[in-house]
Amino acid sequence: MSEPLGVAVLGVGHMGADHLRRLGETVGGARVVAVADPDTARAEGAVAGRERVTVHSDALAALDAPGVDAVLVASPEAAHEEALLAACARGLPVLCEKPLTPDSAAALRVVEAEARLGRRLIQVGFMRRFDAEYAALKTLLDSGDLGRPLLLHCVHRNVSSPPHFTSSMLISSSVSHEIDAARWLLGQEITSVTVVRPTPSAHAPAGLLDPQLVLFETAGGAVVDVEVFVNCGFGYEVRCEAVCERGSARIGDAHGMVVHAAGGTREDVARDYVVRFADAYDREVRAWVAAAREGRAVGPSAWDGYAAAAVAEAGVVSLRDGGRVTVDLAGRPALYGGGGGA
Amino acid sequence: MSEPLGVAVLGVGHMGADHLRRLGETVGGARVVAVADPDTARAEGAVAGRERVTVHSDALAALDAPGVDAVLVASPEAAHEEALLAACARGLPVLCEKPLTPDSAAALRVVEAEARLGRRLIQVGFMRRFDAEYAALKTLLDSGDLGRPLLLHCVHRNVSSPPHFTSSMLISSSVSHEIDAARWLLGQEITSVTVVRPTPSAHAPAGLLDPQLVLFETAGGAVVDVEVFVNCGFGYEVRCEAVCERGSARIGDAHGMVVHAAGGTREDVARDYVVRFADAYDREVRAWVAAAREGRAVGPSAWDGYAAAAVAEAGVVSLRDGGRVTVDLAGRPALYGGGGGA
Amino acid sequence: MSEPLGVAVLGVGHMGADHLRRLGETVGGARVVAVADPDTARAEGAVAGRERVTVHSDALAALDAPGVDAVLVASPEAAHEEALLAACARGLPVLCEKPLTPDSAAALRVVEAEARLGRRLIQVGFMRRFDAEYAALKTLLDSGDLGRPLLLHCVHRNVSSPPHFTSSMLISSSVSHEIDAARWLLGQEITSVTVVRPTPSAHAPAGLLDPQLVLFETAGGAVVDVEVFVNCGFGYEVRCEAVCERGSARIGDAHGMVVHAAGGTREDVARDYVVRFADAYDREVRAWVAAAREGRAVGPSAWDGYAAAAVAEAGVVSLRDGGRVTVDLAGRPALYGGGGGA
Amino acid sequence: MSEPLGVAVLGVGHMGADHLRRLGETVGGARVVAVADPDTARAEGAVAGRERVTVHSDALAALDAPGVDAVLVASPEAAHEEALLAACARGLPVLCEKPLTPDSAAALRVVEAEARLGRRLIQVGFMRRFDAEYAALKTLLDSGDLGRPLLLHCVHRNVSSPPHFTSSMLISSSVSHEIDAARWLLGQEITSVTVVRPTPSAHAPAGLLDPQLVLFETAGGAVVDVEVFVNCGFGYEVRCEAVCERGSARIGDAHGMVVHAAGGTREDVARDYVVRFADAYDREVRAWVAAAREGRAVGPSAWDGYAAAAVAEAGVVSLRDGGRVTVDLAGRPALYGGGGGA
Repeated sequence: MSEPLGVAVLGVGHMGADHLRRLGETVGGARVVAVADPDTARAEGAVAGRERVTVHSDALAALDAPGVDAVLVASPEAAHEEALLAACARGLPVLCEKPLTPDSAAALRVVEAEARLGRRLIQVGFMRRFDAEYAALKTLLDSGDLGRPLLLHCVHRNVSSPPHFTSSMLISSSVSHEIDAARWLLGQEITSVTVVRPTPSAHAPAGLLDPQLVLFETAGGAVVDVEVFVNCGFGYEVRCEAVCERGSARIGDAHGMVVHAAGGTREDVARDYVVRFADAYDREVRAWVAAAREGRAVGPSAWDGYAAAAVAEAGVVSLRDGGRVTVDLAGRPALYGGGGGA
Repeated sequence: MSEPLGVAVLGVGHMGADHLRRLGETVGGARVVAVADPDTARAEGAVAGRERVTVHSDALAALDAPGVDAVLVASPEAAHEEALLAACARGLPVLCEKPLTPDSAAALRVVEAEARLGRRLIQVGFMRRFDAEYAALKTLLDSGDLGRPLLLHCVHRNVSSPPHFTSSMLISSSVSHEIDAARWLLGQEITSVTVVRPTPSAHAPAGLLDPQLVLFETAGGAVVDVEVFVNCGFGYEVRCEAVCERGSARIGDAHGMVVHAAGGTREDVARDYVVRFADAYDREVRAWVAAAREGRAVGPSAWDGYAAAAVAEAGVVSLRDGGRVTVDLAGRPALYGGGGGA
Repeated sequence: MSEPLGVAVLGVGHMGADHLRRLGETVGGARVVAVADPDTARAEGAVAGRERVTVHSDALAALDAPGVDAVLVASPEAAHEEALLAACARGLPVLCEKPLTPDSAAALRVVEAEARLGRRLIQVGFMRRFDAEYAALKTLLDSGDLGRPLLLHCVHRNVSSPPHFTSSMLISSSVSHEIDAARWLLGQEITSVTVVRPTPSAHAPAGLLDPQLVLFETAGGAVVDVEVFVNCGFGYEVRCEAVCERGSARIGDAHGMVVHAAGGTREDVARDYVVRFADAYDREVRAWVAAAREGRAVGPSAWDGYAAAAVAEAGVVSLRDGGRVTVDLAGRPALYGGGGGA
Repeated sequence: MSEPLGVAVLGVGHMGADHLRRLGETVGGARVVAVADPDTARAEGAVAGRERVTVHSDALAALDAPGVDAVLVASPEAAHEEALLAACARGLPVLCEKPLTPDSAAALRVVEAEARLGRRLIQVGFMRRFDAEYAALKTLLDSGDLGRPLLLHCVHRNVSSPPHFTSSMLISSSVSHEIDAARWLLGQEITSVTVVRPTPSAHAPAGLLDPQLVLFETAGGAVVDVEVFVNCGFGYEVRCEAVCERGSARIGDAHGMVVHAAGGTREDVARDYVVRFADAYDREVRAWVAAAREGRAVGPSAWDGYAAAAVAEAGVVSLRDGGRVTVDLAGRPALYGGGGGA
């Protein structure tokens, strides 16, 4: 296809608006042809100044708008399943913001629908796989130069949590990124989750169990620990160290300018994921556009979205009840490689 | 303008081809509508798969092709002056790869042409101004938090020099980036150049004076030292430390993944400027496209291109004759701010 | 006391010989006056060239040698209890290499003997408390600037394990340092231990469970994770990050020279604890000498030695049986502050 | 010699008092037996609590005190020449604080006296040669792994200058360390000095030319640049990067604890040389004591002290008159290796 990919964007909230900007500024080869949002005034505003874009209050209507070649789902998670199934029914490639669906049961229905179709259409928005540092780590691990990975040490910190953030969401929303990253980096499914709860920070909202220490064991015998701390107060930090048989590799300490001034040496820390993963989002969408134009699918699959949901659910049980909780995954369809790897 | 900017690309060599890719993949809001290269077969190949692009052997013909709103000059430097004057004559915004022209006399003619026109059309491709680290340093210096800049320490290293690279080109080609960066960061013109020549590295080609230590003094009394070493053998490194009255700030030590393995801790160093400044090129072209669509000009001006050429010429004299060589700039037209700042 | 402290050194194996060298070279204010080792030829060799040192095959005889003001215990751990009780009976200050005793029951007997005496004579050789980085971390935590500590992330890696090292010794020998460091940094007793076992590294000796991930929970609700990996192959690394309510602080990434050469940037990693903690040992012994000359005791106490043994024993149970194992400490005598802090 | 080295300490000002403390606490194998200071009350106070130390108002009387085996000269520089010549006359090993003498003419007289004696007795207190990072850099350069050194980039910053510090002292006092370090690291004499003067910092005392950029050229064709900035305001920083044919190596960026808190990542910078070079001073004095006990001399020689003075004097001329000033050294006596290396 030499013409730009015609994209329908569902949802023009924070992530949707950001993707709209991206499709105009930093991603070539695509053109937004339709947007949908129940708040059509917001949708109109979001595409002001763009030509030949239709605006819809209904997501399915947007899918059927003229010129739509592919769908970017950035609507609230409750609306994902319907949109994903509709895209599958129409054979449209989809980039779906995480989480794939609100729970693993819904995710499994999406997986089954795509599996019946017999070809991948869905890419889930775990953008870290497109981050340069994560990609370098993946390449290094896959090279085998450091031997087999034994442990992953992960840190996931936010300055502060948004309103209404719950203790479970530290796992289902925040740690879901580490779940996908660990499965991808190790190429293994996660088989158990244990959540350990320190006395919460006095700076966390009352009642929020923050921070938490989350442990995963994997099918291949690796162990992953994740510090999740969503009210750390000082910056957005995502780190991952892979400890292998012959060395370790760490990402997330990257920096730019170093200032020497009163108080010592200092380096800035990103304030949020929009800054830290700006390039990853750009590359994610570019990879999706390029693949969609060629009729391929890349990146995290619907299965990855399902597995992340299932692991997170086990984590929420461990958080509530304590102890080690086993993850029981459905059988993996052949479309996603079958067998036991991630 | 809501339609994409129609761009004519002059020259499809290394940089031209890279910009063509960029205009398709990582920069939105523009469309290549014409290309010119004496080697039309190469030009045809460079735009294979793109629709509605005209191919020309003659640069001026490309400027006159239908749909051309702006010009990206990536032809050999000997061809720049004619292309720039033609673009000015047509009122077309231009992004011109560095150097603006092969010498300062030609650059001054371009400056005078643009000055007569009374508005800026030309952006020179000193991409470092668009690098995130350089931008952070500029912002910090302009904030005044660290006080007045007193010294800049710069390092510019390449793995190896291309064939036919001469001792003068260490200054006119490599150090020209530091000339522009120093003028921009300090907001001052360079008033003298002194080149000091260590015994050359045994790994440099015979006869090449590599490395060199280049000193600048500025109108405001700052001093800049630049190590240029184009056969350092191990990586592409560009560093700059600004030493101010209340602190210093350093860029160019950024890193990503840290590997601990036999031999200690290690971090990768970029191999070349294409990797190191990939983002800077993207941002440079995006800024140019956005400005051109709004009828503005941003970034390094023709005057900056002229000043860089004049300083480099003084450096080449110092390299040849030794000692401190004064830079004599023409009067700066009001279009570029007049007066003495950079 | 203005005369040097007369020291009897028990045991002239690896650590004993190193302390002998230290007392001659890098620690002032003390003089070795007696040494004891069953291998008296080795003992003679160890003090060759020193004047006025008596050599003994029997430890107790050395304690009674003329001029002995204090005792440095570096004999095999099985001999510690007798030496410690004898020193207490004689009122001699002791610096005892870790572990205090082979098990917590013996350690408790030593604690009780010292408690009956009513004053501290014993300093246990947890040298990390005297390391500049650990000391800086302790000072920062105690300052309260970062708020309450919530989590500690620790890493303890050795190039390779010595012969006859067992899976339990990863905890009782290696992690014992982290046990003491965590209790000291947090000022809290450890209340439970959980050991998680990844599939061992193929580079570990057959049967050795290496690496392990060890979790502690403390009386104050903090959580500590420790990676212990004694066949990591590439270096000796000891890291500790304290995550607090308003920031985190990390030690163990210190470096010296940075080399840029083929393959990127590299920094050396220490090969063993002798290098990494050379200064800590010097400061430990200096602090002991200074305190002994003034009739005081400083540093880790017999109680600390007992607590470390008790926590390690719980860890060994968790390693064997899996799951979370509670630590039951005896009541803390008033001599050691009583109550619940560490 | 198995008995401690009997040391006479001349001068109990800042450095003398620090060395006295060192000889009691951190350096074994020596005993202070005599001190001299015109202010005998200060001298009495400095050795309070030490036994068998004689106190003198006259330096030469201290040299002749009973039990004196060696001399540590920490008196004002005007008194050095007499003390050094007297020590030579008595065959006593000397550790002399820098500078060797107030000027190169006096230094040459000391060199000649020692040369006539035919054996080295004098070690000059350029302590950086004993710093672990400098030693690592020297070892690396001497290994040849990185090829021949081409350039050294040096930075020497102090928080603020002491009262009465003059523009010349930036060279003769501060940069003298870089002069010795460069000669030692490169193994070459310095043949010319060029001082470049930026507009001084507004935070420097009125009239003080601070910072300065000092260039050296060496007999082997290497080039050295030194930023000296004694009112940088924020910390004591000493850095040195050696740029070689196959790589570069940098020291002085070492750090300990890394704190992540509001404002980003920060690392402490030492406040002064006492902190930064504490270990170097310890090792310097230990090396001197060990050598003196064996009748050897190590470390920087009287020739090194002379050469540093001569280079500094050329630098002061360049500071005053501008331009490149040649260094003319006397012929090097065979005692110091003769020929042209450093």
